[in-house]
Amino acid sequence: MAQNDSLAKFLDTAVDAAKRAGEIIRNGFYQTKNVEHKGQVDWVTETDKACEDLIFNHLKQQFPTHKFIGEETTAACGATELTDEPTWIVDPLDGTTNFVHGFPFVCISIGLTIGKIPIVGVVYNPMMDELFTGVHGQGAFFNGKPIKVSSQTELVKSLLATEAGTKRDKPTLDASTNRINSLLFKVRSLRMSGSCALNLCGIACGRLDLFYELGFGGPWDVAAGVVIVEEAGGLVYDPSGKDFDITAQRVAASNPHVKDAFIEALPTSE
Amino acid sequence: MAQNDSLAKFLDTAVDAAKRAGEIIRNGFYQTKNVEHKGQVDWVTETDKACEDLIFNHLKQQFPTHKFIGEETTAACGATELTDEPTWIVDPLDGTTNFVHGFPFVCISIGLTIGKIPIVGVVYNPMMDELFTGVHGQGAFFNGKPIKVSSQTELVKSLLATEAGTKRDKPTLDASTNRINSLLFKVRSLRMSGSCALNLCGIACGRLDLFYELGFGGPWDVAAGVVIVEEAGGLVYDPSGKDFDITAQRVAASNPHVKDAFIEALPTSE
Repeated sequence: MAQNDSLAKFLDTAVDAAKRAGEIIRNGFYQTKNVEHKGQVDWVTETDKACEDLIFNHLKQQFPTHKFIGEETTAACGATELTDEPTWIVDPLDGTTNFVHGFPFVCISIGLTIGKIPIVGVVYNPMMDELFTGVHGQGAFFNGKPIKVSSQTELVKSLLATEAGTKRDKPTLDASTNRINSLLFKVRSLRMSGSCALNLCGIACGRLDLFYELGFGGPWDVAAGVVIVEEAGGLVYDPSGKDFDITAQRVAASNPHVKDAFIEALPTSE
Repeated sequence: MAQNDSLAKFLDTAVDAAKRAGEIIRNGFYQTKNVEHKGQVDWVTETDKACEDLIFNHLKQQFPTHKFIGEETTAACGATELTDEPTWIVDPLDGTTNFVHGFPFVCISIGLTIGKIPIVGVVYNPMMDELFTGVHGQGAFFNGKPIKVSSQTELVKSLLATEAGTKRDKPTLDASTNRINSLLFKVRSLRMSGSCALNLCGIACGRLDLFYELGFGGPWDVAAGVVIVEEAGGLVYDPSGKDFDITAQRVAASNPHVKDAFIEALPTSE
């Protein structure tokens, strides 16, 4: 495990990178609507790429021997294998659909794994100026104040979050709405806000009680959020109840009290 | 129709009332979690009631002859009939579930109808400091800047919003998730954020392209939002495609381009 002074430097550098990338996102947020539709996809990709370049360059200056996995680089160059080396896993713009539409749930997600274990997590929503951070063994914070998961013990009083996902084939979509149908009989209500990383932070600060998503983009959607949830006293696990696998594109999270009831109510086990 | 100087006074007074009530909501927002669960319902009701009292008193001072319809008063004293008289229709706290959980999509909704037609609308989210206003014939504004609905023409690129509602009987819930299933094949994605009034404002400023909800609380959820959507160039209608009825607890909204395709895709017609 890294020393405390290294951890502090990892965190500070990641927060700095996230805030700088946040400026790019904030500047671009209200402009997409002015871009003609044909150009919009390119323009979003450019913003995404500009953020990732900024974050990678900033981190590489401080940590030249570390490895890097980013959504944009992976899309352009193929997957990089996650090793035991210190590895920064970055989503420069989580909530791309929200960004395009001007819906203010967007964020930068920067996670660091060492020995494949998430150690540092930074999630920053530049539109709401909300910064979530977590460092292994040192707690989780929202704009500098300590946070903890909700103390909810009953499913029926729990606020659930999930996402519609991007796949539109009939088997996936039917399974997805069947899960929602089944869960709505058992929970208080449902939120879909379009950002996996912010959903995890919602669990961490107790805004949300339950979250699951199947088939999201990649480890960059969860690497930072996992640390933040766990350091806030929450649990991150596979929706089947098995151990969480950062490469599996399946995630569930909650406080410890409602975990068993949640897994039992979630028709995804396999 | 009221004169312009009256309309300006109606709007200014409503904005002032909304901002003052916003302080109560902001002060209470992070406190619910500290209230023991048994006391939580009472505490939320008290916040709700305090906001409604403040808003009604503020408006009555300026407009002593006007009529008033509020969610809290209706819950306590039964329904007040909507007449042709100038009538303020107020939801002092839209997004109660979000308020309880600390999810920052909450708002105050203040609408004025004259001859049963919504004339002035004010929706204020005190947690994000977002103020939406609309005055019949004078445009819609977001924090003082003019807004308009999205220019989206294709359903497949549209961002849809709806809510899970509060009814948990099997026929209602099955119909609700069947609608979602059917729509997800045709739209880009789905958002559920837990506030009917803010969903209407999302349509007005183009963050959202499509919104429908069946079975919401009452006219206070929509009275303000309707003016704001229409003044932003949007349409508000019954999900079946028929004319909107403010007393019917059914609403749909979009820009004019996608209305027909949306109604055709929405399996709610009756």
